[in-house]
Amino acid sequence: MKKVIFIGAGNLATQLSKTLQEHGYEIVQIYSRSITNAKILGELLSCEYTDNLSQIKDAADLYIFSVKDTALQDCIRHIKPNNGLWVHTAGSIPITVFEPHIKRYGVLYPLQTFSKNKRVDFTNIPFFIEANSGRDLQLLTDIASNISQNVRTISSEQRKYIHLAAVFACNFTNHLYAISEKLLQEQGLPFDILLPLIQETADKVKGMSPVAAQTGPAVRYDENVMHKQLSLLKDERLKDIYQLLSQNIHIFATNSSYEQDKL
Amino acid sequence: MKKVIFIGAGNLATQLSKTLQEHGYEIVQIYSRSITNAKILGELLSCEYTDNLSQIKDAADLYIFSVKDTALQDCIRHIKPNNGLWVHTAGSIPITVFEPHIKRYGVLYPLQTFSKNKRVDFTNIPFFIEANSGRDLQLLTDIASNISQNVRTISSEQRKYIHLAAVFACNFTNHLYAISEKLLQEQGLPFDILLPLIQETADKVKGMSPVAAQTGPAVRYDENVMHKQLSLLKDERLKDIYQLLSQNIHIFATNSSYEQDKL
Repeated sequence: MKKVIFIGAGNLATQLSKTLQEHGYEIVQIYSRSITNAKILGELLSCEYTDNLSQIKDAADLYIFSVKDTALQDCIRHIKPNNGLWVHTAGSIPITVFEPHIKRYGVLYPLQTFSKNKRVDFTNIPFFIEANSGRDLQLLTDIASNISQNVRTISSEQRKYIHLAAVFACNFTNHLYAISEKLLQEQGLPFDILLPLIQETADKVKGMSPVAAQTGPAVRYDENVMHKQLSLLKDERLKDIYQLLSQNIHIFATNSSYEQDKL
Repeated sequence: MKKVIFIGAGNLATQLSKTLQEHGYEIVQIYSRSITNAKILGELLSCEYTDNLSQIKDAADLYIFSVKDTALQDCIRHIKPNNGLWVHTAGSIPITVFEPHIKRYGVLYPLQTFSKNKRVDFTNIPFFIEANSGRDLQLLTDIASNISQNVRTISSEQRKYIHLAAVFACNFTNHLYAISEKLLQEQGLPFDILLPLIQETADKVKGMSPVAAQTGPAVRYDENVMHKQLSLLKDERLKDIYQLLSQNIHIFATNSSYEQDKL
């Protein structure tokens, strides 16, 4: 299980292919529908590349599909079936997407946000594995365990919820950072004054439940501060976000027995 | 400017008083309306403590008010005016709260989330300073600069927006962590699988704008994934939060020229 082909040349494919190569795997080919992207990653890895699905080699052990969810099924259908193990890396797509096209298939889902140009240390990244046979489940577990200390077998159903939780904890969180950047920019203040606070907020939940770590006017139900802050927001959508999240913080707090901290 | 009295014994007062003491300031007295809390912090600092505002000594150089916003005005009114410099530590209260009760007053606002039992390194915490005289502004700047490398003078108006931005970047962010914990718990999965993702999300914005760092289905406008994820959420309020934040991510993305990363 040493020869690997990547279908996709995006952020995840870039980071994962480089890491696998560093761990002794031979990346034999990169496919991307954009020949520019295929070439960039192919040259980075010193391997062949193509933008033509019919030219994907059939001699690899592992085919890693890391393309947009909407493109995955189409990519699968246009590659000739072979004896390799085909896996995808998507959070919300069931393992059955490979049926009945190919005999050996699975999922290799790393729970992380990837950038093309920011190297990620895979050691602590959780990998969630699925396969349609015990033998391939073991093969995938071995591969993932070579690059990460945190490998688990889960169902497609559970994976959907992990992806959903990740959207809240990563994508939506990042958007809150973007909103706060905008609010500061409008006052001529730089975003970086928030970085120690952002780091401490992330640090705190390493040692306690987020419900116990909750601080701020909403959890204290300090209506005076909340009304004043709402009046500072001119954008109706931001007002709605402020109100909805504040109400939900209050609901979580009253349903829990944790004692909260204070901002 | 060495003798300090704290009015309040909460998380911020606890962390700030310990840090000032370690930097050579003499904490002479702690007030809390709860004698239990006054005693805990007083004994920690080996100083006097009281739950009676009329017993607050008048010989200190600096009086730091770190109480709930709603209690601040009342506390100020019930302490006999003296020659010390009185400051509060609140984000959303104007400096004028001290008028006309006392001659020398200001604000010492550290931008951080504090817990009683988690020590905070003040070195990088931004301090936002205000005072009603140039001399006291300099005094406060000197004190803050003894414990932090990041001290700025700002207006009460700007401070309100900093506090608002902090509510988004800290309080609301932490609540998103709480939502993701709940979603995982319902599937029998532990929250700690999200910790590497949470850390990377915080790390990314140290090097790029959050708008450029945005990943996930909403910024790709992947309606297929978004509809599937919405159908997983049973709670109507969570559905509303999901939709509002997704729409706003899309608006921010279309209004910006950044190229986004992918989750």
